[in-house]
Amino acid sequence: MTCLNSRITDIHCSKLVDPETAANRILQLAQNNRINIGTSGFGSVGYPKMIPPVLAQLASENNVKVRILTGASAYAMDAHYASHNVLERRYPYQNNPLLRKQIDNGIVHFMDYHLGEWPYMVEHGWLDKTVGKLQVAHVEASLVMEEGFVPTGSVGAVPAWVQQADYVVIEVNTDVSPSIHGIHDIYRPVPGEPIPLKRVEDRIGEPIVRVPQEKILAIVESKGIDHGGTPVEPGKVEKQIAENLLEFFQEEISRGRLPRNLYPLESGVGTVNDAVFKALAGAGLKGLRAWTEVVQDSLLDLYYQGVMTALSCTSLMLSPKNLENFYAETRGRENIVLRPQDVTNNWELIRRLRVIAVNTAVEIDIYGNVNSTHILGRRIINGIGGSGDYSRAAHMSIFITPSTRKNGKISSIVPMVTHVDTPDHDVDIVVTEHGVCDLRGLSPREKAKVIIERCADPDYRDLLWKYYRLALENKGGHIPHLLDRGYSFHIALEEHGDMRKASI
Amino acid sequence: MTCLNSRITDIHCSKLVDPETAANRILQLAQNNRINIGTSGFGSVGYPKMIPPVLAQLASENNVKVRILTGASAYAMDAHYASHNVLERRYPYQNNPLLRKQIDNGIVHFMDYHLGEWPYMVEHGWLDKTVGKLQVAHVEASLVMEEGFVPTGSVGAVPAWVQQADYVVIEVNTDVSPSIHGIHDIYRPVPGEPIPLKRVEDRIGEPIVRVPQEKILAIVESKGIDHGGTPVEPGKVEKQIAENLLEFFQEEISRGRLPRNLYPLESGVGTVNDAVFKALAGAGLKGLRAWTEVVQDSLLDLYYQGVMTALSCTSLMLSPKNLENFYAETRGRENIVLRPQDVTNNWELIRRLRVIAVNTAVEIDIYGNVNSTHILGRRIINGIGGSGDYSRAAHMSIFITPSTRKNGKISSIVPMVTHVDTPDHDVDIVVTEHGVCDLRGLSPREKAKVIIERCADPDYRDLLWKYYRLALENKGGHIPHLLDRGYSFHIALEEHGDMRKASI
Repeated sequence: MTCLNSRITDIHCSKLVDPETAANRILQLAQNNRINIGTSGFGSVGYPKMIPPVLAQLASENNVKVRILTGASAYAMDAHYASHNVLERRYPYQNNPLLRKQIDNGIVHFMDYHLGEWPYMVEHGWLDKTVGKLQVAHVEASLVMEEGFVPTGSVGAVPAWVQQADYVVIEVNTDVSPSIHGIHDIYRPVPGEPIPLKRVEDRIGEPIVRVPQEKILAIVESKGIDHGGTPVEPGKVEKQIAENLLEFFQEEISRGRLPRNLYPLESGVGTVNDAVFKALAGAGLKGLRAWTEVVQDSLLDLYYQGVMTALSCTSLMLSPKNLENFYAETRGRENIVLRPQDVTNNWELIRRLRVIAVNTAVEIDIYGNVNSTHILGRRIINGIGGSGDYSRAAHMSIFITPSTRKNGKISSIVPMVTHVDTPDHDVDIVVTEHGVCDLRGLSPREKAKVIIERCADPDYRDLLWKYYRLALENKGGHIPHLLDRGYSFHIALEEHGDMRKASI
Repeated sequence: MTCLNSRITDIHCSKLVDPETAANRILQLAQNNRINIGTSGFGSVGYPKMIPPVLAQLASENNVKVRILTGASAYAMDAHYASHNVLERRYPYQNNPLLRKQIDNGIVHFMDYHLGEWPYMVEHGWLDKTVGKLQVAHVEASLVMEEGFVPTGSVGAVPAWVQQADYVVIEVNTDVSPSIHGIHDIYRPVPGEPIPLKRVEDRIGEPIVRVPQEKILAIVESKGIDHGGTPVEPGKVEKQIAENLLEFFQEEISRGRLPRNLYPLESGVGTVNDAVFKALAGAGLKGLRAWTEVVQDSLLDLYYQGVMTALSCTSLMLSPKNLENFYAETRGRENIVLRPQDVTNNWELIRRLRVIAVNTAVEIDIYGNVNSTHILGRRIINGIGGSGDYSRAAHMSIFITPSTRKNGKISSIVPMVTHVDTPDHDVDIVVTEHGVCDLRGLSPREKAKVIIERCADPDYRDLLWKYYRLALENKGGHIPHLLDRGYSFHIALEEHGDMRKASI
């Protein structure tokens, strides 16, 4: 006997309950009015959908504070917990506006952390003093069998949470085709051992996440196609960035520094990245592969167009229509592999595969330091995500950004970034719509010239030159800076709403 | 027949020349009045000694500019090139005061780079546009045989330079005992392949650096024991830091988060680190191992005292007396291995071995960002060295620093660091003489409280609290900051010579 249209194997059928029952069982595990939950969800795909609204309400009524550890973003799930004001801690990445506000107000403690080493750190006691033991792993699955379950459109940190938590609660999403079984490759890095993977499409693990039967606390039926990404069309700026990027790749190929099909590509999360990769279609590239954290629409398009021959990721962060199509169409996806985030974002593998990392920057300074996470140095956007994993270990680290934002009021190129996520050492190439800045082998003074002349918007070049020359003449140094005016662009933005009004 | 007291095998004897002849041969390889030299030298040990003074003078007379790539520091060698004003570029790390001045004045282009990936990047064309091909690998050896040579007290980037350069010039240092043959393990990471190393003492390569015979351009006799480090005695502050560090380790051991013999330790370059590790002797620790970039006096002492059972490094950065003793005494050093820097500082291995990284910070801000390289954000000290390699990939990343410098005029804990080498994400533990700040799992606001209360000097706590509270009240945010006052400590230092005079 199996239940839920054969989605659940017989021995687990008795655990099928409604969301209220499951939420109550979870809440009973709370200690000192606190519950620690590790959930599925990465790229806002594959997160649990049915229990969070109920559990959030119950927690609120019972004065229980919730600590949520995810793989990465889980937009709709976070909305429930945030709107009920029950979150106390939320690690290590998020993208929900209400939650952002709560983090900025100090209501929710957030620790922004590299996604690749996140499961490892939790396993090794990094949260012993602030969170303690995980009581529940709360995950979305497409099938539950005797030995474990098949995840849906993301893997994230699920295998780690399942191992560590006392109990596992599974939501079986019947809107996800069971044909997804076989796409996942569940392998956990073993401390002390090399990871036996050499090619993007290699499979080194199993297609399921194993769970000891007695750990399963409840199973709930779930529905819904995730809203991972929003369809984007490249605008003029993104097309120009893509063109510049392509030109750079072609130059590298012609000099023999990159092979004709490049090395495996990473494409960072976000609409700029997605739009730029969309614009790469039809450029005549062939045989590309992606070793990346999330597959957005652009990469999947390139795969179906035959430009990409293999995709490895931890989340299918697609727009709903594309995700639905993907679930429905099983043909031709043999070379798409979904892995845990401690494999996709693993430095050993990123370097071994010689990944070319392409990430979006919020702002870049004239010496090549990158801010990816904080507005004006203090307001959280989403988190560093995988950009630190990839930019650090990559064969080549590229950052792309439109040169300005908000109709030119904000320059993405500034004298000094207000928060450093990727230090200058790990930034090889910067691309804006104005050009390519090849920073490899340059001293800071040389970098400044290239960045101001080739990547900054013409409207800001005089201001940037002024800062640089004043710093050079007044203070000099390996990295000329004026500490009392390094943030003049940002202060002008705060005071006048426009960086062009900076007084230097 | 062999020559130079059997230091050189017969087939190479004809290449033995005086330093002038060798220097002239090197200079003849210059193109467009520029010569590119990759040299040995790491931790100011194992650098070439006889040719540089002659070559520097000849280059000066002939208006030839010199570009020097090393493994890391080569103090005395740099002195020659810098004092003759012939350096145009110098990568990726240095520690010479005159050279520092030339870098700060923009006379020498310096690119500060992670030592672990440095040889890889050069091999993959990172310097194509600024330096071009290496004409010469200029190295110190203890023995030259048919197939290659045995390095001396460091390996650094030598195997990479020898592979890439058109020619090799060898200085045979007859003051280094030939008994050093066997201590080196020369293995180069193979792109696309896992590195087959699992324990600190594993040997995976060969004891010599291979060179095709026809590449050897000249061999010169050399003399001299290197001055890698200066003997240090831990003062009160270092002893207190060591005590705090020990207490932290013991707590971690008692909680089961670290094994009794810890994981392999890295000890960063510098006198603070050396003094603190000296103070660890007699603490009752046993069975320790070091997987580190340089072995300074302290680690070697711990090894001979039986506290450490295995040492792996790329340089014996010892004080002269200790280095001399080491060369003379061959017994008991079976578990000391000297490797190329792309092995010692390799992230794949640092993580696999679960290294505990202990590095010195120049300054740390209240949110846990670390500056290791630049004074006031602009004047170079030495370079990031391996601290970025280790802190990023380590099992645990610890930064130590005295809480103040210059008799209390400088606080090592500041509101905002002026240069970020290690972002907050990669800083787990901070230790000063006042206490241990365990930042694991903390939000930025929690970090600020811990850092101000436990690690800052009491003289600075009120000022730091004032900054933090004002930032919190006026601006808030995930990371409360005041962009117009973040550098008030540094500006006070510049204007009044004392950070305590900061106006916030």
